[in-house]
Amino acid sequence: GALAVKTMWPLLWNAIYSLVAFFVTLKAIPSFMNIFMQAGFAGVDMGKKDRPKVAEAMGVISGCVFMITIFLFIPVPFAWHLARLGYNEDHSLTKEQIDFPHHEFVEFITAVLSVCCMLFLGFADDALNLRWRDKLFLPTIATIPLLMVYYVNSNSTTVIVPKQLRHLLGFSVNLGGLYYVFMGALTVFCTNAINILAGINGLEAGQSLIIAISVALFNLIELTGAYRESCVFSLYFLLPYIGTTAGLLRYNWFPSRVFVGDTFCYFSGVIFAVVAILGHFSKTLLLFFIPQIINFLYSIPQLFKFLPCPRHRLPRYDPDTDKLNMSTTKLKLNQLHPLGRLMFQFLRVLRLVHVVPSGDGEMLECNNLTLINLFLMILGPTHEKRLTCALLIFQVFSSLLAFFIRYQLAKLVYDV
Amino acid sequence: GALAVKTMWPLLWNAIYSLVAFFVTLKAIPSFMNIFMQAGFAGVDMGKKDRPKVAEAMGVISGCVFMITIFLFIPVPFAWHLARLGYNEDHSLTKEQIDFPHHEFVEFITAVLSVCCMLFLGFADDALNLRWRDKLFLPTIATIPLLMVYYVNSNSTTVIVPKQLRHLLGFSVNLGGLYYVFMGALTVFCTNAINILAGINGLEAGQSLIIAISVALFNLIELTGAYRESCVFSLYFLLPYIGTTAGLLRYNWFPSRVFVGDTFCYFSGVIFAVVAILGHFSKTLLLFFIPQIINFLYSIPQLFKFLPCPRHRLPRYDPDTDKLNMSTTKLKLNQLHPLGRLMFQFLRVLRLVHVVPSGDGEMLECNNLTLINLFLMILGPTHEKRLTCALLIFQVFSSLLAFFIRYQLAKLVYDV
Ligand SMILES: [Mg+2]
Ligand SMILES: [Mg+2]
Repeated sequence: GALAVKTMWPLLWNAIYSLVAFFVTLKAIPSFMNIFMQAGFAGVDMGKKDRPKVAEAMGVISGCVFMITIFLFIPVPFAWHLARLGYNEDHSLTKEQIDFPHHEFVEFITAVLSVCCMLFLGFADDALNLRWRDKLFLPTIATIPLLMVYYVNSNSTTVIVPKQLRHLLGFSVNLGGLYYVFMGALTVFCTNAINILAGINGLEAGQSLIIAISVALFNLIELTGAYRESCVFSLYFLLPYIGTTAGLLRYNWFPSRVFVGDTFCYFSGVIFAVVAILGHFSKTLLLFFIPQIINFLYSIPQLFKFLPCPRHRLPRYDPDTDKLNMSTTKLKLNQLHPLGRLMFQFLRVLRLVHVVPSGDGEMLECNNLTLINLFLMILGPTHEKRLTCALLIFQVFSSLLAFFIRYQLAKLVYDV
Repeated sequence: GALAVKTMWPLLWNAIYSLVAFFVTLKAIPSFMNIFMQAGFAGVDMGKKDRPKVAEAMGVISGCVFMITIFLFIPVPFAWHLARLGYNEDHSLTKEQIDFPHHEFVEFITAVLSVCCMLFLGFADDALNLRWRDKLFLPTIATIPLLMVYYVNSNSTTVIVPKQLRHLLGFSVNLGGLYYVFMGALTVFCTNAINILAGINGLEAGQSLIIAISVALFNLIELTGAYRESCVFSLYFLLPYIGTTAGLLRYNWFPSRVFVGDTFCYFSGVIFAVVAILGHFSKTLLLFFIPQIINFLYSIPQLFKFLPCPRHRLPRYDPDTDKLNMSTTKLKLNQLHPLGRLMFQFLRVLRLVHVVPSGDGEMLECNNLTLINLFLMILGPTHEKRLTCALLIFQVFSSLLAFFIRYQLAKLVYDV
């Protein structure tokens, strides 16, 4: 019908724009590589025999191509209304007849604003190495317009209660302000979660691409459902993101010719947070972040300094075998915080940590608590490319699990 | 009346926020100086005996404080509507009764988006030294949402014709698309005009501060007029800008402890362009840019390579007298483009260029064509601080002239 056409044309245009954005990214990255290297944005790839110097923070380029694509796309979904405005120079149509969808337009602009802020912030982090308090404080500020638009346009802070709990809590619970805290925390989580599951060639861009494709599939499935407009909105952002990230991955894949930088992780995180918040599927989004959540939970003892945490927790490269090994850290059990000791023993009992005695009797050596090291513990020493593939296959399986939970398990607790 | 209170309260809050922003900037800049220097954002001050190293691109800090101030301020002008939305959880009020001013909100967000884009772009230029084509191409893209909002919310592309020409052109002329080209060009002009009237301690921040205060005064005068809302909107942005720029000037003033960087020039330019476009006074804005326009016109022969243009055109420091002298460039008349020769002879006849023979008979030496060198030609060798003051006094007189043109001369050509 008419509605379907009005939805489908902009989406088709968006897909074409995204394809062009893919090729533009492919072309732009090599042309900026030297500019970045000369300006000091260069990192050493520690996972290679010859330790090559590689351009850093190249997520700026895919991010900028994304921004340009979105800016050029903004008029497209509103073309019909803009044309009516254009024919209205004699003011024969009333405001109601034109009926410009200001609420949709403002959602669009606000989403772009959030992305732009985080891109800026990420680049500032790459260029300046921001302090932790700035990294947590600034994204929180950047979500204010987003949450305000959510408040103005929907302000739905009600969550449906699972069937099994309804005799206690009723059919639904209004979380009110707490829901806004959740959405703010989601943004901070997304922007940092990808950043800490990182460090081997192709992993950041690869995982983000898989998450983006999964969420886009979810939106395509829901396109026939009740939240059609939210899904279309989400796809407007995800398709150009997929295009530019695929272009970036082409150069970030093993052996990396570019590194993506903090910029890319911030940029990716905010894209997911924005589409999920304004698309009303923030809880579902978390299902697609299972590996990142596992990595975060597993990292907690080190991130919050219950166990000693070295500056870098990357796997250790062995030039003799050309393979990656677990990186380790040393600790003394009796010098740990009681909570840290508890965590350590818990992980040890579950065999989730590899422990060997080191030197004298009291000193222990255990692997750094990252998902990458956990994979190396299970797989043994592994070639970098194979390790990235293993982690990305895990990401794909997590997405399949997410779809299963969303469409099958949900039936057990909700009436869907 | 009620309207006046609804206007005045948010403005008062804005003024308080801006005052806080001033103090935050004062505190933030020293705390980030070392981070910037360590990350390689450092420049050498060539106008001092000991050539000290100074933190560069610190406009990022005043720009970020500005952004944070604006983000925290966004809810304030809409507080009354937001409160009504809050009381409306039972959906007893209809959409019309709440009447959320989406068109104002979207103008606000779009303006912030443009500022954020240019801040990002300016920082990228400071960090990466962008190529000229990128510097012109990217700001053009960044104005798309701004122009689209202008199109949707007002689309007034009609200009009133001066009395003396009305028998030819009629009372008003609709410039249509041309007006959008003008507004786009205005943005690119503003962002670059401040950047090329720069290079001595305190000049960039000083001139921008004077322009901002002048435009704010203009808005305060017009606050009682027909375009009250546009003026309020403009002041929302100008007051925090004045606060943060005053904080920055404190450290950029002679002897500079920080340089402002391209970031600051881009940031300032876009602020002026945005408030003028959305505030419907883009022609008046140009009146406050008289020194920048003179500098641009005077620079044209070198900027467009009709005369030889060295990479830096800063005045030359003389360590013996501790004063600044004109910087010069060498040229051979018969090797110039005919148009360049014409321009050169024209300036020479008007005594706007200082020419001395250099070495053999054909070679000439003339001052670089910048307003700073023109001032040095008139004043003779001058101490840096005195030179900045002279240029800023000229900026103040230009503002007085602007007010005179706007409120007295305009009577001769328009019925005001
Ligand atoms: Mg960093
Ligand atoms: Mg530069």
